[in-house]
Amino acid sequence: MGRYVFGIDVGGTTVKCGLFDVEGNVLDKWEIITRKEEGGKYILPDVAASVLAKMEDRSINKEDVEGIGVGVPGPVNEEGQVPVAVNIGWGFMDVVKELEGLTGLKVKAGNDANVAALGEMWRGAASGCKNVVLATLGTGVGGGIIIGGKVIAGAHGAGGEIGHIHVEDAEEDVCNCGNRGCLEQMASATGIVKLANRLLAESDEPSVLRAQEISAKSVFDAVKAGDSLAQKVAEKFGEYLGKAFAAIACVVDPEVFVIGGGVSKAGPVLLEYIRRYYEPFTFSACRKAEFVLARLGNDAGIYGAARMVLE
Amino acid sequence: MGRYVFGIDVGGTTVKCGLFDVEGNVLDKWEIITRKEEGGKYILPDVAASVLAKMEDRSINKEDVEGIGVGVPGPVNEEGQVPVAVNIGWGFMDVVKELEGLTGLKVKAGNDANVAALGEMWRGAASGCKNVVLATLGTGVGGGIIIGGKVIAGAHGAGGEIGHIHVEDAEEDVCNCGNRGCLEQMASATGIVKLANRLLAESDEPSVLRAQEISAKSVFDAVKAGDSLAQKVAEKFGEYLGKAFAAIACVVDPEVFVIGGGVSKAGPVLLEYIRRYYEPFTFSACRKAEFVLARLGNDAGIYGAARMVLE
Repeated sequence: MGRYVFGIDVGGTTVKCGLFDVEGNVLDKWEIITRKEEGGKYILPDVAASVLAKMEDRSINKEDVEGIGVGVPGPVNEEGQVPVAVNIGWGFMDVVKELEGLTGLKVKAGNDANVAALGEMWRGAASGCKNVVLATLGTGVGGGIIIGGKVIAGAHGAGGEIGHIHVEDAEEDVCNCGNRGCLEQMASATGIVKLANRLLAESDEPSVLRAQEISAKSVFDAVKAGDSLAQKVAEKFGEYLGKAFAAIACVVDPEVFVIGGGVSKAGPVLLEYIRRYYEPFTFSACRKAEFVLARLGNDAGIYGAARMVLE
Repeated sequence: MGRYVFGIDVGGTTVKCGLFDVEGNVLDKWEIITRKEEGGKYILPDVAASVLAKMEDRSINKEDVEGIGVGVPGPVNEEGQVPVAVNIGWGFMDVVKELEGLTGLKVKAGNDANVAALGEMWRGAASGCKNVVLATLGTGVGGGIIIGGKVIAGAHGAGGEIGHIHVEDAEEDVCNCGNRGCLEQMASATGIVKLANRLLAESDEPSVLRAQEISAKSVFDAVKAGDSLAQKVAEKFGEYLGKAFAAIACVVDPEVFVIGGGVSKAGPVLLEYIRRYYEPFTFSACRKAEFVLARLGNDAGIYGAARMVLE
């Protein structure tokens, strides 16, 4: 086995890159621009050039490198092929074949949310666990599910797409996926803003939120300050997430739920609101599952991508 | 590898037993009584005696037997231990250790619903698939989930407990599990009778169901005969199941949903009502999942138990 492994996380703006040893210690970390033009055709060549340049810099031979792991914002099948990844301009892309051809190194590819879950399992909040559900609450709601130490990619690359669990029959807005009432519409950073605006419009109840820009942060700051209307928003938010996690637990029964993404910066209070609706709605044995905040932040992707190579 | 394998399915009334070759052909099939008295302490000795007698009858040596697989109606951990299985009188039972001690053969144990899913994957409706969700619609709603050819047992033995996904906020009756509004309360054989009785009480609409005993069978017979009220019951039933399966698909993204249990005798019409509510509520990529009726009936358990030994 080589002594080094590269972890690459391809995002819509930048490609995050990491050089790791096989124990998961990060030795170097850098970013390159994601060139989305012309169907994103420069992205993998740019990654290859950057990896090879790093090896040259550090006098690392190919034999010393176990491989390159790549996280992609889209579905990835078991062969490491991406049917489409709109955020980075890709139509079909055979990531493994392309990048192996460009570097001569072993390559593995996976969906970015799944890969982030692997990262949190390897060196983050779920360290030591083998059955993990990661929920990333950002602009959308992403998910990654690991069972027995392995990512559930799914038969159609949609394993862990928990943001599209249907949770609200009354929702009239259409989700990016085309459905209505998805978890992502109600319990993302944008979802919580929508919930707050709706509650503010429905009542005259005084709230500090009436005097400021509404964001996930301002809502949870108001919750902590005891604002009653903000607490009602948090209750609703917790109910959507708690019930969805309760359903997920009846399917895969994880040891731990890891909550990441921008919204998780609200801290432990977020977990309290989730647990309040998780516990009464899940199967008794699953009440033992833990809820923790993600630890690796934006680095979860590069850690997990590197870990993927070592599977 | 031995040429034979035993599959044992421990139920509340009888223990079903099967002798298989390693390709999954059943060579012999029989049943013994489940003696639940005294904490079910005779069950495993009875199984051992029955297996050893069968080997004697057929002049099968121990070296020719790959092992014994056992399905149990309760949670089973990775070591093959059962914390409790009320239906057969058991408190804690170390199935693997006990039965290996009694027979000198290798033993594996698993939850009966999970094991049935393995059976349908090996020689039944999901033959050739590796990612399978089995839902058993009987007195309750059981589930078994297979990903990458392996059962998801779960961190607390509750993997695949899909009957306890919360689906109805308005339900006031309490489920056997202690919660309210579980899928099992609404979409089992008993659930469909409850739905029918409620709809009959709520309206004066004429229906053939008013003149007969209500059962899952009579409801679906009336559906096929064009009875409008029965069709409304089937819609509600399909909605509960379709939405629950849609959520499950966003978690594990299976190739196929296999529907078994007594209710599945209604036939393909059942699948139509489920798909009607599955497709609009699941993630687009998961719409490709197939829905099929189980094929092995009450034998799924012995097939799957035998298959478990060969993993």
